[in-house]
Formats: sequence, structure tokens, C-alpha cells
Amino acid sequence: MSACTHLLLFGATGDLARRMLLPSLFALDTEGLLPQCLRIIATARSAHDDASFQALAADTLPEAADPQARSRFLARLSYVALDASDQQGFAALAEAVPDRGNLAIFLSTAPALFGATIAGLASAGLAGPGARLALEKPLGDSLAASRTINDAVAAAYPEDRTFRIDHYLGKETVQNLMGFRFANTLFEPLWNAAHIAHVQISIGETVGLEGRGDYYDGMGALRDMVQNHMLQLVALLAMEPPARLDPASVRDEKVKVLRSLRPIDAASVEACSVRGQYTAGAIDGVAVPGYTADLGRASDTETFVALKAYVDNWRWKGVPFYLRTGKRAPERLSEIIVQFRAVPHSIFGAAPLAANKLVITLQPDENIRLSMMAKAPGLDQDGLKLRELPLDIGLPNAFAESRRRIAYERLLLDLIEGRQTLFVRRDEVEAQWQWIDAIRAGWAARGMAARPHSAGTWGPSAAIALTERDDVTWHD
Amino acid sequence: MSACTHLLLFGATGDLARRMLLPSLFALDTEGLLPQCLRIIATARSAHDDASFQALAADTLPEAADPQARSRFLARLSYVALDASDQQGFAALAEAVPDRGNLAIFLSTAPALFGATIAGLASAGLAGPGARLALEKPLGDSLAASRTINDAVAAAYPEDRTFRIDHYLGKETVQNLMGFRFANTLFEPLWNAAHIAHVQISIGETVGLEGRGDYYDGMGALRDMVQNHMLQLVALLAMEPPARLDPASVRDEKVKVLRSLRPIDAASVEACSVRGQYTAGAIDGVAVPGYTADLGRASDTETFVALKAYVDNWRWKGVPFYLRTGKRAPERLSEIIVQFRAVPHSIFGAAPLAANKLVITLQPDENIRLSMMAKAPGLDQDGLKLRELPLDIGLPNAFAESRRRIAYERLLLDLIEGRQTLFVRRDEVEAQWQWIDAIRAGWAARGMAARPHSAGTWGPSAAIALTERDDVTWHD
Repeated sequence: MSACTHLLLFGATGDLARRMLLPSLFALDTEGLLPQCLRIIATARSAHDDASFQALAADTLPEAADPQARSRFLARLSYVALDASDQQGFAALAEAVPDRGNLAIFLSTAPALFGATIAGLASAGLAGPGARLALEKPLGDSLAASRTINDAVAAAYPEDRTFRIDHYLGKETVQNLMGFRFANTLFEPLWNAAHIAHVQISIGETVGLEGRGDYYDGMGALRDMVQNHMLQLVALLAMEPPARLDPASVRDEKVKVLRSLRPIDAASVEACSVRGQYTAGAIDGVAVPGYTADLGRASDTETFVALKAYVDNWRWKGVPFYLRTGKRAPERLSEIIVQFRAVPHSIFGAAPLAANKLVITLQPDENIRLSMMAKAPGLDQDGLKLRELPLDIGLPNAFAESRRRIAYERLLLDLIEGRQTLFVRRDEVEAQWQWIDAIRAGWAARGMAARPHSAGTWGPSAAIALTERDDVTWHD
Repeated sequence: MSACTHLLLFGATGDLARRMLLPSLFALDTEGLLPQCLRIIATARSAHDDASFQALAADTLPEAADPQARSRFLARLSYVALDASDQQGFAALAEAVPDRGNLAIFLSTAPALFGATIAGLASAGLAGPGARLALEKPLGDSLAASRTINDAVAAAYPEDRTFRIDHYLGKETVQNLMGFRFANTLFEPLWNAAHIAHVQISIGETVGLEGRGDYYDGMGALRDMVQNHMLQLVALLAMEPPARLDPASVRDEKVKVLRSLRPIDAASVEACSVRGQYTAGAIDGVAVPGYTADLGRASDTETFVALKAYVDNWRWKGVPFYLRTGKRAPERLSEIIVQFRAVPHSIFGAAPLAANKLVITLQPDENIRLSMMAKAPGLDQDGLKLRELPLDIGLPNAFAESRRRIAYERLLLDLIEGRQTLFVRRDEVEAQWQWIDAIRAGWAARGMAARPHSAGTWGPSAAIALTERDDVTWHD
């Protein structure tokens, strides 16, 4: 796939475009990574001309940016107003794309518009062999709905030109996971049930609904966070070494993990999952209202979920993957703990030995920290005194020269240049939905209501019990 | 064994006592680690009274030391002049030791005096059940000579009261080796032939003979450095996990390694060893004379030796241990490299991946550095770009608060308190000599002369060839 000359941005006046996409494209431009001739055609329903959209875009760029760089970037932008339900409008849009053989399209619009948009693009000749389409979540709210969307996409864009975004895959540290696992001899021989006791993944948001109640209340934490980001992290952590770093090899391995997830169904859902919903509480000493008050109506939607998952294959047999995510958590945090088993026998007597662990932090700052034991210096009169030694082996400390990047920079560049490795394939999405749907069916079958917990806590006490029953404590 | 109340120091006016032993004892005293009642009875041939010896000892203490601490320490010291060949003198010495039930004796004298000294101690009643004896190298120059000394010692002091010193075992980082290997799950599963490609140990001294020609010319590098320090490092690196950190468990494991060393004999000595002798050259830009000029006569003594050793057991089958040591080396360095094997297959394309390695430095500064690969931050347009990331996981960076210690502090404290783990057992010494004697016999059988090499280089070119034949390069 050659680099595109035109990038078509749907939803260009929306939140994602303004917070992430335009600043990311600008950053790429500043570093000289955009094709010289790249034109960005923005589209949305609002009435704008090129100049007024450029003014809107200018407000999204860093204030301190070099004025020349700003002008060069803004000059790439043009705007075409479009109502996706008006199929005529697509003809006008197509006129703005003289080179349809090297076209990338980014759909950052409501999923309800996907079908009409794709049909319009296809009818206007914007789905030819040189066109590729990127989609952002949510891609449906169930396996069935996801299939409907995927079928509509597939009718116009074949899989090898469909780029499903999970922005977690754009994070440096998530890619570094592959570097650590497969570029070092040190970890891979230990990366299995014989040496790893369990894995924890925690994603906490301190925010509540932020005005997204209509969307969120229909989804809940399981579908909003676990179905995509958390399962993608599980897949990357648990996958076998791919033969190459190409899209097919990597995604073949990931989908194998997703398909090996032990189903959580009506029989196991009470033992393996916890639903929670935040009530009024406090975060950092500031009082915040409960979910139903945020929402303005009663609801049983879970704003917190904790799961105990297993990957049933040779490598991971019996290793629990504990997942938890929630809104109004005590902190904004996205963190993976790989907890190695304790040494089989301590030669050092009664002194406790902390088992090794890797702490992979994605938010608020990216880092990978390895905790090891080392001799404490000094003259120990009763044997060798040991201490836990935390080693920062990831970003940002190790490579201080690098600025923090937005995950979308990586993904937009890959979209523009046509590399699919960091995008999610249809079979992955569907395997994720299949596992998620079974959990939801189990909840329904057992009538599992969301348990209340105070805002500012990590879920109801049942979430603590979920791991403590296995003698495991959530990492703090 | 209870802590001793008396420490008898033979050779108290000598070089080792002044540079190492007295300053170490003072440091222990400053930290409150010496038994309150400990008396140190110094002895040597020179005429001194308590006051004049205290004055001599005072000169060995750090100038900046607290005056009160100095006075307290010096008040522990008394002096008894003794000619070891005069058995009568020992009776007078014994009178200075009222409590013979808690006595530690440190022999820092010429080996020629060992026999007479031990006989004198025994006859004066200073070898009773509460007395322990520490000896410093050289303990003979061959297995036969070593046995003679060990027999003489054993006639008065049983093995469990004999403390053979190898000061390398007093180094923090050498003990930390046991901490790293046995307190972490991370290394031990990889610590074998399946994952380690080879091990290198380099000990370089920049000094030449330093007036010790008479001693050194009779020994050579093999017996002066390999027989003791280097083989002890091999033993600690290669040993199986001991059941406990007690003297019997640790030394049982070490001696198993020493007895598993594949003999280098007349058949293999040319392929597996290199003898060198430095000629005139330069170190740090300063011209230095050659060995025979230093010595003042012709000599075939090796001042450099390189060996390729194998530990023939299940764990280490086929893993070369490359050892080299020399005087007038380019730098003062004592370093162990544990080179892991490369990943079996790179998923990252053609970009070279450096195999992981541990670099354990004992001199000039103690440290343990782990070299790993990690993703270089940034947007790599052709796959995942990786960089080598060096992690300092040992002293001094990890635990900045600690001062540098003299290795003898640890060993003297263990002697005083009666812990034998860090002292070398008779069977270890003898296994070391047995292996060394075979090499020397091989050299004699093959008439292998020492090859000249310029001072300031790491031995003759044959030492480079020794590893390069295996496609291995000495670490720089």
C-alpha cells in the first residue's frame, strides 16, 4: 500500500477530531512525517468554509507551535459540509478528492451514521482499490450489531483496507510490550504458567458521565472498556510469538488468545465477575454525585466491572487474568501487573522475599517497572539481607529525550502509510464480542444487579473478594 | 560459635594489616559492630610496645575520623613482639590472651612461617575448642604444597574452625550474585546452557611487580589469580542453588562445580590456554618497562593467562567460561559477563538484536548492569525500532546511601562472629589446585612458553584468537 495523498476526515468538528486527530496530524507534519502532497479534507454537518474550518483547527494546535509550521499545516486543510443521510452530498465530496487511488478515510462519527456514510462513499466512487477506511469504536454493542457494521463495511471495503482503531494499540508502552517480550531472551522463557502466578489489568477513570450519559448508559463498563482495550491488552500479553511483525502474523496470534478465553457464562458468572455502580462519594477530597444523579434517572448499568479470566491454552493454563475498570475510580490509572511466582524455596531463611513483578503503566504516565530483589548493602549479621529494587525499564526515564506522543499519531501515520499491524481485525472484534455477550447473558440469567459502591473507590467489596479468595491482592 | 573476645593479629606491622585489616577493624568499631569487650593483640617480629604500635595503627586510620572513635579503637590494641621460630615466645603471647575460649587468630604472615606459628599456637594452648584460625593466600603453590599446609593447620584447628580467606568473597557484589540468582525468579530458570551462551571473567591489574618479584615470579598469573579468585567466581556463578545459606550447603555446591571443571591437560592445553608475559609498553600514555626488566632477570613466568574452561554437568554442558587475567593490563578491571543467547528468531526483520547480557563489575566500581532491548520511542516507519537499554541493577547506583566498604570488613566480622559461609573450605582449595596443577603439567609437557605482549594490552593475540575461534569477542 502506498502512502495516501488525501485524508478524508468525517466528524471533523467533533470532540475526537479536536482533542486528538488534528493535534496528532499537526505533530506528524511538524516532524516531516506526512507525505508532502497530503491534503486533509474535513467534513461534518456544520456549515464551514475552508477558512472558518482552518480557524477552528488552528485553535486545536499547541499555542507555542512555530507559526510557519502552523500555516503549512492549516494550508493542507479544506472543508466540505455533508449530511451523511443526503447521498447527493457525497458527489460534491468526491469532487474534492481528485486522487482516489491513494485515499484514507477516517470515520469519527456516530455509529448510526456508519451505514449511510459507507454507502455514500461507495456510490461516489470513494471505495475503490486505493481507498482505505478507518473506524473508531463503538463498533456495535453486541456480536450481532458488530456483524451488521462489519458487513456494511465489508460490502465496500475489504478487510485489508479496513482499519479498526483501538487507540490503546497506539501507545508506546503497548508496542514496547512486544519489544520486551520478543527482543529479549530474558522474559519469554518465563512468560507462562510455570513462572507467572497471575496478571492484573486495572483501568480507572476519575471522571463520571461527562455528558455522555445517553451513550454510556446503553453500554456500561464491560462493553465500553473491557470488550476493546482490556481484551486487546490481554491478547498482546498472552499471545505466542508471531513469526513476523506483519498484520497477519500478529493478528493471527492475538485472535488465538481471544478465542482461548474461557467463556464466563451463567454457571461461572457469579464467581468470576462483579458489577458495580458508583454512588455519591469523593475523589481527591472533592464530593461527586452518584451515577443515577449524573444520569438523571434510575439505571442498572454497571460503571465498574471486575473479572477473573482464564486463557485456556498450554501456556496460560490456570493463570488468572484479573481485570477491573470503572468510572469515578480513586485515580486515573491504566496499569498491567505481571506477577511472577515466588522462588520455589528461599535459601535466605525466614526473611520474606517479594516475588518479582513487572508493572506496566500506560496512564497517567507510560513506564515499565521491574521489581527485583537485591542484596541490601552492608554487613548483615544474620545472613544476606535483601531489599526490593524497582527498576524503571520503560518510558519515560530510559529514553529521556523523547516527548510524550498522542497514541493517535502512531495510528494516523500507519493509516496514511497503509500499515495494518496495530489495527484490529474483524475476527478479533467478533471473538471479543462473543466472550462479552456470554458474560452479559450470564448476568441476565442470574439477575446480577450492579452493586453500589462509593465514588472514589475501586468498586464494591465483592471486587476485593474476587481476588482475595485466590489469596491475591489488587496492586496499589 | 559465639563472638570472640580476643583477636590475635599475626603480621600486624605488614602491608595487608596496615592497608586493609586495621582500617577494616576500625570501620567495624565505628559502626558498633565489634564486641564491646574485644581486645586486639597485634604481633610481629618488630620491636614495639603498645603505645608505639598504637601510633603505627593510628596512621592507618582515615584522617577525618572522629577523634573519640579513634581513641576508643586504639585502646583495644596491644602488641606482643614475637619471632615465630622461637617457640618460647608463644608462652608470652598466650599470657596476653586471658580468654582462650573465644579467640580468633588472623595469620597475615609469610606461608613459610605457617607451620612454626601453628605449632607455637597449639603448644601455648591457643588452639583449644574456642579458638579459630584465619589464613590468607597463598596457601601453597600446588596441590601437594597446599595439602602440607592444610595438614599442619588441621593438626591444631579442625576444619570448622579454619577460615581460609579469599577476599573476593567479601565483596558486596559477589554476595549480591547469590542474592540475584536465588532471591529472584527471573534469572534462575535462564541460568543454564539453554539460555546462556558463554561467561567471561576478566581481571586486569595495571600494576607490574611492585617489588613482589620474588613471590610473583615463583607463582605466575595462573596460580596468583586463577587458582583462587577466578575459580571462586566460577563456583559462585555456576553452583546449583544451595538448600540454605549456611557454610556446609554453600560450600558443598561450590566444590561440586570445582570438581566438575573439565581438566585442561596436555591434550587440550594448547587449544584452551594462553600464556603471556608483558614486555615494555605504555598504560594511559605512560611508558612502563617489561616484566624481565621489572624483575631484573630472565623469566618464563606468565604474567597473563587466558583460559577456556567448561563445567561438565547438566546445567553448563557446552557453555565456555572464558577467563583472563594479567598484570600491566590496559585498565584496573574485574568484571564478569554473563552472555545470554540471542532470541531464537527475530520477528523484527533485519535489524540486529543485541542478545541480553549481565555485566557484573567488581572493580574499579561495583555494579551489576543488565542490558536489554526496548522499543526506541517514536514513530518508526519500518516496523518497531529497538534499542539496547542498559539497566544498573547493582551497587552503587541502586542504593546510593551506602558507603564503599573494604571486602575485609565483611570477612573480619564473620571471623569474629564465627560464620564460615564466605570462607573457602579445604576441599574447595584442593579441587582448585588439582585443576591448576593439570594445566601447569600440560604447559610443561607441551613446552608452552609465555608469549610476549606489550604492557597495556590484554595479553598476546592468541588470547583474542582463543575466543574468536568460537565467534566470541572479549567484552570491552
